[in-house]
Amino acid sequence: MPAPATPAAVAAALAALEGVLGDRLVRTAADRDAHAASESHIRAGRPDAVAYPRTTAEVAAICAACHAQGVPVQGWGAGTSLEGHALAAAGGVTVDFRLMDAVLEVRPEDMLARVQPGVTRRRLETHLRATGLMFPVDPGADATLGGMAATRASGTTAVRYGTMRDNVRGLQVVLADGRVIRTGTGAPKTAAGYDLTALFVGSEGTLGLITELTLRLHGQPEAVATAVCAFPALDAAVAAVTEAIQTGIPMARIEFLDTESVRAVNAHAGLSLPLAPLLMVEFHGSPAGVGEQSARFAAIAAGHGAAGLERAERPEDRSRLWRARHDAYPAIRALRPGSEAVVTDVCVPIAALAAAVAETAADIAASGIPGPILGHVGDGNFHAILLYDAASAAEAAAVRGLIARMADRALRLGGTVTGEHGIGIGKRAWMAAEHGEGWALMGALKAALDPAGILNPGKLVP
Amino acid sequence: MPAPATPAAVAAALAALEGVLGDRLVRTAADRDAHAASESHIRAGRPDAVAYPRTTAEVAAICAACHAQGVPVQGWGAGTSLEGHALAAAGGVTVDFRLMDAVLEVRPEDMLARVQPGVTRRRLETHLRATGLMFPVDPGADATLGGMAATRASGTTAVRYGTMRDNVRGLQVVLADGRVIRTGTGAPKTAAGYDLTALFVGSEGTLGLITELTLRLHGQPEAVATAVCAFPALDAAVAAVTEAIQTGIPMARIEFLDTESVRAVNAHAGLSLPLAPLLMVEFHGSPAGVGEQSARFAAIAAGHGAAGLERAERPEDRSRLWRARHDAYPAIRALRPGSEAVVTDVCVPIAALAAAVAETAADIAASGIPGPILGHVGDGNFHAILLYDAASAAEAAAVRGLIARMADRALRLGGTVTGEHGIGIGKRAWMAAEHGEGWALMGALKAALDPAGILNPGKLVP
Repeated sequence: MPAPATPAAVAAALAALEGVLGDRLVRTAADRDAHAASESHIRAGRPDAVAYPRTTAEVAAICAACHAQGVPVQGWGAGTSLEGHALAAAGGVTVDFRLMDAVLEVRPEDMLARVQPGVTRRRLETHLRATGLMFPVDPGADATLGGMAATRASGTTAVRYGTMRDNVRGLQVVLADGRVIRTGTGAPKTAAGYDLTALFVGSEGTLGLITELTLRLHGQPEAVATAVCAFPALDAAVAAVTEAIQTGIPMARIEFLDTESVRAVNAHAGLSLPLAPLLMVEFHGSPAGVGEQSARFAAIAAGHGAAGLERAERPEDRSRLWRARHDAYPAIRALRPGSEAVVTDVCVPIAALAAAVAETAADIAASGIPGPILGHVGDGNFHAILLYDAASAAEAAAVRGLIARMADRALRLGGTVTGEHGIGIGKRAWMAAEHGEGWALMGALKAALDPAGILNPGKLVP
Repeated sequence: MPAPATPAAVAAALAALEGVLGDRLVRTAADRDAHAASESHIRAGRPDAVAYPRTTAEVAAICAACHAQGVPVQGWGAGTSLEGHALAAAGGVTVDFRLMDAVLEVRPEDMLARVQPGVTRRRLETHLRATGLMFPVDPGADATLGGMAATRASGTTAVRYGTMRDNVRGLQVVLADGRVIRTGTGAPKTAAGYDLTALFVGSEGTLGLITELTLRLHGQPEAVATAVCAFPALDAAVAAVTEAIQTGIPMARIEFLDTESVRAVNAHAGLSLPLAPLLMVEFHGSPAGVGEQSARFAAIAAGHGAAGLERAERPEDRSRLWRARHDAYPAIRALRPGSEAVVTDVCVPIAALAAAVAETAADIAASGIPGPILGHVGDGNFHAILLYDAASAAEAAAVRGLIARMADRALRLGGTVTGEHGIGIGKRAWMAAEHGEGWALMGALKAALDPAGILNPGKLVP
């Protein structure tokens, strides 16, 4: 854990901030506690105060005041991150962006939206509905777009539309000392200098606080087709997906659920999906296009032993199916009532996916911990949801072992310790193993941009 | 211009390098001159020696020796960059990657290729032909993949497949002091820390030398359809493209040529394309898919006054058409024999493209300098090819004025001073205007990674 600032320094910074924010600087125990726990199983520290800025200028004032006193600053979106990113590991000021929630501008011709960081994914979706455009990145949770950019979020549609890396065109960022920069332009691409946008996307609040995002929009598909098919085993499902990708079938989503996940989802959502390794696939395009795509996919799936493709023709059936997929987390939690759940992810080369999942499943089975596996099979990214008794030190240790072996396995197979959940606190122990000398380089970048180390201490960097 | 190293320092560095490279360290005037001129109109400096390494270890030894003596190091690919990126502005050692030209590995299931930086685009294309896979980024010139990554190259297919930003999965990089790092993994995505791959892509050799690339491959399309359509004016063509993109028609290429460009291309390639603002469009997909896409595009184009869609059905007609587009540069040069040509690019938001091109065309017409305009209309990226008499100071000044106003105009319209040619020496004067405080931040990153400033001095950063 990093060392917190001295009480005198914190008091001086908060006094300065009260002058800027008035009653939007909150020091109540309730508010501090609310920002000491997120959807993550990780607990680490508690902020000294929570700030609710309305403008970039106020965020700049927060950073300047904290910088002057060496007081930690961390951003807070919707509290949905899974690796403890937004926790105040060394106290200080947590900047909650909920009041910066305006959709500032939608430019249909340029297919861009400019939003404040506290706008949630669903709010933007609602805002865009009538425009014929959409923002495709969908991590499941109703996260804020600022948080999604900070953690380089992705989700079910990344196989077609990419992650936040691909869908953030530009940012406004407040640096550690309060300076404000803009990255990117309104043009679809640029070759003008270092890719600062990509540097901040995924930097987890350690290099600056995002106060505005310019997002790339896509046309809403004219037609959507969803289908489910059951495979005899995971490797057959992976082989079908690989062939479909190589053939160029543009799948908009392609999700894997293991048999245990299917059982949970069926029970929770009142569905009767076949109890087997499943693929849920979606196609976006013209009516003729999606018809052709699903027919071609069905042929490939059949070639790999799939029991047939069940299409969800009606929009309500489609919504129900994807709602069930997105609700897999509570569904799986319900498999063991009263248990604590850890959701952990890794991402591997497609050719290694079947092995990675099979070895992980065997490891989980041997541990006795319930742990269904599901994920974004087109990206090589999968999740295990581990259900354990938090009161049992043995079970907690078993879970730590499973997470560690899953991360080590991903590295051994040429992958990464996280495809979309990020590093935060939970995966920091693997950064040296994954990046080698590159982790030191990340530390050098951090030192160059935040020499006092006030931005989100205890996360990501050495 | 940055200050060169002292003769004693250069001598010491070269003596050390001779021990490593033997006769692959060349100091002949002919070789030094050959690396003092590229396809760019810019001239700046001459290297003290040219190194031809075979391995990453040798590149690391070059950097370590030059770092110890404060001697500049710059990379050299195929010499096709247009803004003077690879010129030895302060002398020192130019590292020519032509001997590091191996395709190290192709992993069809993972759709990845691992290559050395000296592999050219066409060589990789040939290598992949039988695999059913392709690397789509196509800047026209037969550039090296290392150079393409260093300059964040794109080209005609970026509208569908993205630029080098989107198609480099990972890198091996030698840092200024000779340390070697790897970025990225074999997994399709990652959320594990700062995006070092994106930091080096487009860094123009100022942060490190790329010694290996892992590239993302795509399936070769089953069917390809190419078509040409003539519009009454540019704004109608842009409106058609905007509508097609919003509708979700997945165009693989969508190129604009103004009437003067068409005239030049017709004369050079023996074609009889209609003398009007033209769009050349290509679709990739299944046979039924590309048929549907071109029919839908034709309907949209007709709605914007296009005179009809001429399809190139036979592969040889298609090749001829795209060869003509790629040969637009020599074709346009031939419009004014004996002239010097400057190719300059900018990129603007799509909504501003028609205005940007119209204002640029009017400015060029008023100058009396021949200057056809063409470009990647789906990306908002266009080029002017300015033909002038190098012996005329007045014409040279007129060209400088045109380039400057084109860059200023792009910024005023919310765009960037370069969509794909990069900054190098030629566009450095606009970095402060485009990035404001962000340019200082680029300088801080540069100072953190290359405190002695030996890597490609005089380019990109403050």
